[in-house]
Amino acid sequence: MKLLDGKLIAEQIKIEIASEVKEQFLDKGLDPPHIAAVLVGDDPASMTYVSAKEKACREVGFISSVYRYPANITQEKLLEVVDFLNDDNDIHGFIVQLPLPPHIDEHKVIERIDPNKDIDGFHPVNIGNMILNQPCFLPATPFGIITLLDRYKIETAGKNVVVLGRSNIVGTPVSILLSRKSSPGNATVTLCHSFSKDITAIAARADILIVAMGKLGFVTADMVKKDAVVIDVGVHRIPSTETKSGYRLKGDVDFERVSRKCSYITPVPGGVGPMTIVSLLVNTLKAAKKEVI
Amino acid sequence: MKLLDGKLIAEQIKIEIASEVKEQFLDKGLDPPHIAAVLVGDDPASMTYVSAKEKACREVGFISSVYRYPANITQEKLLEVVDFLNDDNDIHGFIVQLPLPPHIDEHKVIERIDPNKDIDGFHPVNIGNMILNQPCFLPATPFGIITLLDRYKIETAGKNVVVLGRSNIVGTPVSILLSRKSSPGNATVTLCHSFSKDITAIAARADILIVAMGKLGFVTADMVKKDAVVIDVGVHRIPSTETKSGYRLKGDVDFERVSRKCSYITPVPGGVGPMTIVSLLVNTLKAAKKEVI
Repeated sequence: MKLLDGKLIAEQIKIEIASEVKEQFLDKGLDPPHIAAVLVGDDPASMTYVSAKEKACREVGFISSVYRYPANITQEKLLEVVDFLNDDNDIHGFIVQLPLPPHIDEHKVIERIDPNKDIDGFHPVNIGNMILNQPCFLPATPFGIITLLDRYKIETAGKNVVVLGRSNIVGTPVSILLSRKSSPGNATVTLCHSFSKDITAIAARADILIVAMGKLGFVTADMVKKDAVVIDVGVHRIPSTETKSGYRLKGDVDFERVSRKCSYITPVPGGVGPMTIVSLLVNTLKAAKKEVI
Repeated sequence: MKLLDGKLIAEQIKIEIASEVKEQFLDKGLDPPHIAAVLVGDDPASMTYVSAKEKACREVGFISSVYRYPANITQEKLLEVVDFLNDDNDIHGFIVQLPLPPHIDEHKVIERIDPNKDIDGFHPVNIGNMILNQPCFLPATPFGIITLLDRYKIETAGKNVVVLGRSNIVGTPVSILLSRKSSPGNATVTLCHSFSKDITAIAARADILIVAMGKLGFVTADMVKKDAVVIDVGVHRIPSTETKSGYRLKGDVDFERVSRKCSYITPVPGGVGPMTIVSLLVNTLKAAKKEVI
């Protein structure tokens, strides 16, 4: 079994981005790429994500700004913030950190983002263009997953891929990306979810199994074919007395047992997570280079 | 075996639409829904499709206009036509009949259509909103297929659906629609294509098999599970001395043998074809009622 070391690959990509920032922007006297994040409320997970994104931005030489608003911000005001960021030529791309408070219509907010600055790839135009195989911003987690497969030269063409979980931000888009006529891609993809019957048998046929169920330890060894490639998107905080933070991170896959059976597996942490963040940086660089417009 | 009689269901839906046109438009002194089609060149199949659409429009009381242009129209001029139709408040929805001549970038043309008038459902915004389960115009053939399943009360939730063919207008969108959290939907969908290995074994596991390969008689009886539901999207013209037209229509499925094994099957002609056209009418009605905006 080999680890799909997302942390390592993400570091390599960051070095590539930093060198591009220097050569394509700073050395030419241009401002570096500038990413903004809108953070509403004080959800701890959201705050952690935004901090991690800021840190990654600094590492590659991007400018990053965070716009913080209280949880009781009105929808109207938040849409004004989006308009402001759409119009600000100094900002190349921005995200509105999800989830938003329940009184705000997330879809309305996402729809309002200029698709050319939608580095999260959540706008309908970007999702539609992803399906059509046209230039677009890919959603960060699926983009990170296909990049990881690509960097490890794992063949996907003609392979049976099973995706567990059909969320709009992970399961559904990664199933589309891997079935598209592209590389990575050209896989035979089966998308499973809470209504699926006999998930164990379906998963056990997968050459590549992508797990994004949000259920701790859901995938057990009997659900994995020998020498399969396993990608674990789940992140769960488990209380622990052994760590300084008071918790450990675990995934949707029973790593200990599954890792003995498969050919490649992503660890949690250090697998898909770092790839997600670095994919956001890649999108920002694309936005700054106006490659998607 | 029962026939999934698309012609019959399409006629029923047309009666429903005609009655809505009367009650919601004419009786209120409003103009009826108005659909326009842009036809470039003289491709016989395109001309046949556009005529069939016009005929269906007349049957339900829509106004229909056809804008005809020679095959050598420039892309610039065609985009101007699209702009004109976008701006014409008398036209509720329009289609640009595909394929377009090779010197024209189809994607550029489709992107230019106002998504609120895009009754073909091909604009990236509509495709993206389809994935997000938001109000949108669904592409006509996939919409026709799910309507047919719905009208025949064929359960899709938890069923294994196999889709053969991943085109942007049929295979990929129908796979998304049937895996969405909706009804019809909630199926476990596997999308196969030219790179897929062992299609026979995959197809033979399907409770519902949707065939959109564009290969005459591709699906043989050994690829179909007993009592499966079979949807045949293929249309092929076979020369025939027995018909007035000089040809017969056949599908991607070996109807004679497969029909003895399955529980439901769409005939060709009279299955998916009429459902596609009537779905375009449903979309036009939605556009005229401003249900999608």
